[in-house]
Amino acid sequence: MARAQVSELRVRYAETDQMGVVYHSNYLIWCEIGRTDYIRSLGRPYAELERDGVALAVAEASMRCHAPARYDELVRIETTLTEVKSRTITFDYLITNGETGARLVSARTILVSLDGEGRVVALPSAVRAFLDSGAEA
Amino acid sequence: MARAQVSELRVRYAETDQMGVVYHSNYLIWCEIGRTDYIRSLGRPYAELERDGVALAVAEASMRCHAPARYDELVRIETTLTEVKSRTITFDYLITNGETGARLVSARTILVSLDGEGRVVALPSAVRAFLDSGAEA
Amino acid sequence: MARAQVSELRVRYAETDQMGVVYHSNYLIWCEIGRTDYIRSLGRPYAELERDGVALAVAEASMRCHAPARYDELVRIETTLTEVKSRTITFDYLITNGETGARLVSARTILVSLDGEGRVVALPSAVRAFLDSGAEA
Amino acid sequence: MARAQVSELRVRYAETDQMGVVYHSNYLIWCEIGRTDYIRSLGRPYAELERDGVALAVAEASMRCHAPARYDELVRIETTLTEVKSRTITFDYLITNGETGARLVSARTILVSLDGEGRVVALPSAVRAFLDSGAEA
Repeated sequence: MARAQVSELRVRYAETDQMGVVYHSNYLIWCEIGRTDYIRSLGRPYAELERDGVALAVAEASMRCHAPARYDELVRIETTLTEVKSRTITFDYLITNGETGARLVSARTILVSLDGEGRVVALPSAVRAFLDSGAEA
Repeated sequence: MARAQVSELRVRYAETDQMGVVYHSNYLIWCEIGRTDYIRSLGRPYAELERDGVALAVAEASMRCHAPARYDELVRIETTLTEVKSRTITFDYLITNGETGARLVSARTILVSLDGEGRVVALPSAVRAFLDSGAEA
Repeated sequence: MARAQVSELRVRYAETDQMGVVYHSNYLIWCEIGRTDYIRSLGRPYAELERDGVALAVAEASMRCHAPARYDELVRIETTLTEVKSRTITFDYLITNGETGARLVSARTILVSLDGEGRVVALPSAVRAFLDSGAEA
Repeated sequence: MARAQVSELRVRYAETDQMGVVYHSNYLIWCEIGRTDYIRSLGRPYAELERDGVALAVAEASMRCHAPARYDELVRIETTLTEVKSRTITFDYLITNGETGARLVSARTILVSLDGEGRVVALPSAVRAFLDSGAEA
């Protein structure tokens, strides 16, 4: 079964809206933090992959908001690498309150591998092996 | 068939990221602009609904990115009100380049009706009738 | 006296915070819209300058908030190019309510000219002449 | 001399722009994180002050960008409470690279005390005493 990487953050005032809760598009930014931490945990930061010419762009994203996150709340993001294919990678996310465990948001993103000109390409085999090691962990 | 409301905007520098294209979470903000314009076109701005105690919160969102939007590009958002139920409203969005018509992003959001305390409630019948008039237009 | 360029926008829900008004860092994004429109009005969009290797980065920014902007409000940004020097450009901004004229924010940014490696360089003389034409207009 | 509170964060991909560095308005959001941590360190989180009816809104902000922050960089924010007056509070910030100590941004914000209707009011004396304890520490 796939390993989950845990990230934590505290909700910023800037992330709230006038409904008094976090504006929903910020959840996708938190997912990005989750997968960045996930990739780093495999031993090579995404920043380094990108310098080597591998860009991973979000091709699909979806989320369900179960309960709103609120200002100053400690939030926990559990990130799982669900699938690695030749050109795409799927991450799943579960965002919860870091203290009570209450479920806030579940999300999924599918990323596609791009070359320097923004064309979809197969993941370099070394990168694929590296990511597979996470998916199988 | 449901009517589409058209919104237009120009991509802000702040919306780009170091991949040289729009950061994906911004597409959800553009969808919000689309549905705000949609609701305004029915005759009552969302700001007014909210002052009357009707809050519409995003419960689900999904998007597919077909091609990236770029800085300074003129972007067109077509918003359709797909379904109105007692407690939820579904909007679909098609984001294209405003000059070439190239398809950039398609998205869907499901909004849920909340009362002043953030509890899910049935849409007031007047609001539902008002929204239905759009869905059927 | 320097000419003012006028931009207009409507406040996005995403730009509000739980105080019920626009979160202040967004005013700097509106200033960016103002100077983009300003530069475009001189005949060459900033996007084109950047493709030609001229980057203008914000080196200093300041703002005073006189009254808060609110969701769905029509906002007007008046941008003035105050000074062009060999390596820096100063813009001033006045943000008002587009309907009542009420003053919301006044701001200033100083931009510095960078080459492709991010080093401060003198503005190319053609660009400087082009900008001077605005400052003197 | 005033005590400095240290906050740390890692730069998010969403915070970069197509110049390949952090978009400048994000520095104001980092300042907000700095002063939130500062106020928390005095023993009462800002979230609690706000629930008690004390809102602190940014009335003035200024910043100088010495060098750009970059994606995935570890950033350190030093926040100092410089002045507490009857209706305003001044914070100073120094943002540096968390590993090399390189200076990135220096900033200042002046916050004004508002009541529940958004009117400028004197800080409640208990809050002022509480903040003074920080300024004098």
